[in-house]
Amino acid sequence: MGMVKQTIIGVIGAGDASEKDCKLAEAVGEEIARQGYTLLCGGMGGVMEASCRGAKAQGGTTIGILPGSSKAEGNPYIDYPIVTAMGQGRNIIVASSCDAIIAIGGGFGTLSEIAFALRLKIPIIGIKTWDVSSDIKKAETPEEAVYMAIGLIGTNT
Amino acid sequence: MGMVKQTIIGVIGAGDASEKDCKLAEAVGEEIARQGYTLLCGGMGGVMEASCRGAKAQGGTTIGILPGSSKAEGNPYIDYPIVTAMGQGRNIIVASSCDAIIAIGGGFGTLSEIAFALRLKIPIIGIKTWDVSSDIKKAETPEEAVYMAIGLIGTNT
Amino acid sequence: MGMVKQTIIGVIGAGDASEKDCKLAEAVGEEIARQGYTLLCGGMGGVMEASCRGAKAQGGTTIGILPGSSKAEGNPYIDYPIVTAMGQGRNIIVASSCDAIIAIGGGFGTLSEIAFALRLKIPIIGIKTWDVSSDIKKAETPEEAVYMAIGLIGTNT
Amino acid sequence: MGMVKQTIIGVIGAGDASEKDCKLAEAVGEEIARQGYTLLCGGMGGVMEASCRGAKAQGGTTIGILPGSSKAEGNPYIDYPIVTAMGQGRNIIVASSCDAIIAIGGGFGTLSEIAFALRLKIPIIGIKTWDVSSDIKKAETPEEAVYMAIGLIGTNT
Repeated sequence: MGMVKQTIIGVIGAGDASEKDCKLAEAVGEEIARQGYTLLCGGMGGVMEASCRGAKAQGGTTIGILPGSSKAEGNPYIDYPIVTAMGQGRNIIVASSCDAIIAIGGGFGTLSEIAFALRLKIPIIGIKTWDVSSDIKKAETPEEAVYMAIGLIGTNT
Repeated sequence: MGMVKQTIIGVIGAGDASEKDCKLAEAVGEEIARQGYTLLCGGMGGVMEASCRGAKAQGGTTIGILPGSSKAEGNPYIDYPIVTAMGQGRNIIVASSCDAIIAIGGGFGTLSEIAFALRLKIPIIGIKTWDVSSDIKKAETPEEAVYMAIGLIGTNT
Repeated sequence: MGMVKQTIIGVIGAGDASEKDCKLAEAVGEEIARQGYTLLCGGMGGVMEASCRGAKAQGGTTIGILPGSSKAEGNPYIDYPIVTAMGQGRNIIVASSCDAIIAIGGGFGTLSEIAFALRLKIPIIGIKTWDVSSDIKKAETPEEAVYMAIGLIGTNT
Repeated sequence: MGMVKQTIIGVIGAGDASEKDCKLAEAVGEEIARQGYTLLCGGMGGVMEASCRGAKAQGGTTIGILPGSSKAEGNPYIDYPIVTAMGQGRNIIVASSCDAIIAIGGGFGTLSEIAFALRLKIPIIGIKTWDVSSDIKKAETPEEAVYMAIGLIGTNT
């Protein structure tokens, strides 16, 4: 048996996202699953829940890095809930655990995750998100975002 | 589609464990996988690696909560590496994320995880481990440990 | 004896800051001390060290929230080194522990601290820093930054 | 100006400690302050509050590493409240930030701090506390505990 390590694509965005951003997130989640990657997120609602719902609809696998102290708070589409009880402090674990990240819209929590991804040189794709660095590659559609993310995996080393 | 949340059994023990403890850990990992549960550990060597090797040999699923900043440090039997870069600070995430925990031998890092499990009222089974509380249920064999763990899942709520 | 809690003003900025930013930081540190406040920072070099040097030159008190596992890494102007061993994960503790924050220039680590401050509604003043929100109040001089910070303390509750 | 770094002695113990343990803690805090050291603790009630009260009564300085997200939760004898919002996850920061630690009684949270201190080779003195290692030096009185702690500072390097 060789290495079994799964490649992980993160989806970050607001817990109170717009319907439009949630639709984008759901399509991103679907595409991540169709391409055979594992989806990781902050485990809560909004963009996080929508992306997990999309991934599960396509038979994918989802990990949620939860801010609170109970698995019950995670959205219902999380396969593997990781309980940090660190609040927004868990954002750096979200960023660090991904091989590439797709940011959709987002508030200040998402901005902290983008900042960590940029600091840690983890590839990051943005759809209508914070424009704080040219290192955030811009995508127009969910499919394009996933293809770009896949193409950038491993380039941070 | 209903809830997809997987039930997680943790295996904790030393990174520099004895051969005997590693054999116990491997058998525990095998049994966790045979019973259909996900195995979570600290992601490194010794008891952690042995338990993951056992789980993967039986087609199970493994999560490693890594102390360092790189996925490369995880043992080769980890499906889902979670990168915390928190050193031993990740021990509370190991404990918090499990529905039940099996402790095998162990040093001071393991003791910290046991302490957190006891504090958070997460069911814990011990095989030749720290004897600091009657809340640590003692098992003699790997199979017994896993059966006891399964039986205690959900009793902490 | 009544409450003894000290009011803390944070200074955030890059560890590899320009000479100009370091001069600003030193003057900010001096003014924080002159006004009787405690200075808190990430404990390392650049803007962090310069601000602590300024504070100590005026008889102030300094706290450093260190990213690594040893007090030895802190800059020599830290009175109270707090060892987190959480790397950039300590950035949220830097932000959360301040009653007001002054950001000077800064890279992605600073951006993560700004994002947390905005998320947690901690008053933040910026001197030539990331322009990601109108909630970052702009100051032109070190003295103005400190006066603005003092004026905003307590307004986040 | 030379190095200003203060030497820190930690006091750990339960938040719901017995009156007897609180009296011991208060005397320990008084002695730490009389000897010119800074006291660091988990910032909450019980042993933590009693030790801070003792230190402040003797004109000492106190740091509280708080588990929650608000300074308001800290006991009223904390000079410098550090806000982690990490719950019991802050216990490793308590242990790591001390040059020596005095444990008084204690529950499972205290046990996790003792385990981290032992793991990180930080000198630790115990008064009627967990007996999990011969590396925990036993003291009978508050004064003896503080003298032993002072004598062991620096021996972990």
